[in-house]
Amino acid sequence: MAKPLVKSYIDIKEMEMEGGARIRWLITHKDGAENYSMRYIRIDENKETPAHKHPYEHEIFVMSGTGYVVLDNETVKLKPYDFIFIPGNVFHKIHSNTTMEIICVVPISAAKELLGD
Amino acid sequence: MAKPLVKSYIDIKEMEMEGGARIRWLITHKDGAENYSMRYIRIDENKETPAHKHPYEHEIFVMSGTGYVVLDNETVKLKPYDFIFIPGNVFHKIHSNTTMEIICVVPISAAKELLGD
Repeated sequence: MAKPLVKSYIDIKEMEMEGGARIRWLITHKDGAENYSMRYIRIDENKETPAHKHPYEHEIFVMSGTGYVVLDNETVKLKPYDFIFIPGNVFHKIHSNTTMEIICVVPISAAKELLGD
Repeated sequence: MAKPLVKSYIDIKEMEMEGGARIRWLITHKDGAENYSMRYIRIDENKETPAHKHPYEHEIFVMSGTGYVVLDNETVKLKPYDFIFIPGNVFHKIHSNTTMEIICVVPISAAKELLGD
């Protein structure tokens, strides 16, 4: 049975993403999560998250910073306390104008695919 | 097919929870989310989230504020940038010492149960 977990994001190793954003996988299947995975992503000024699409969705909350998100052919400005639902198979990237911090949740299947079992 | 969504948390109606915390359901099955639901919860000074347990898990990120979380018989202090994994069937509540803001993700089955279809 999975155990409760309380940690700081600083306890989690930071990894670089394509586009220059940096990610910390906070909670994954390795902690016993069965359904979804919470990640913290920092996008320094004028950096981006990967520009891509995939079959799974994102649920994102913008904690700080400003920039924009590209969703297929649309571009939408972002500010703190905005949130984004990106369904599967929608092309997307987030670009920061000022350093952004976001929480981005993915299905556990994506965590397993990206991190290995 | 679900559509992409970008909104501010302020666009979402705030609802009171037992214990005095206030919740905004940011992304739910009503937006086409199939797997999990992202909520924003504000816990004013000396208020709490409901003290309870349920079969589903929480994944939580502390955006601001300080307080503590009770996890069965354990109490753990909380500060900004802490995160919490609460597996199903663990008794829990969060108490704020200073106003806390958290992001709390639940399975979509819980959203359907709590909000209706």
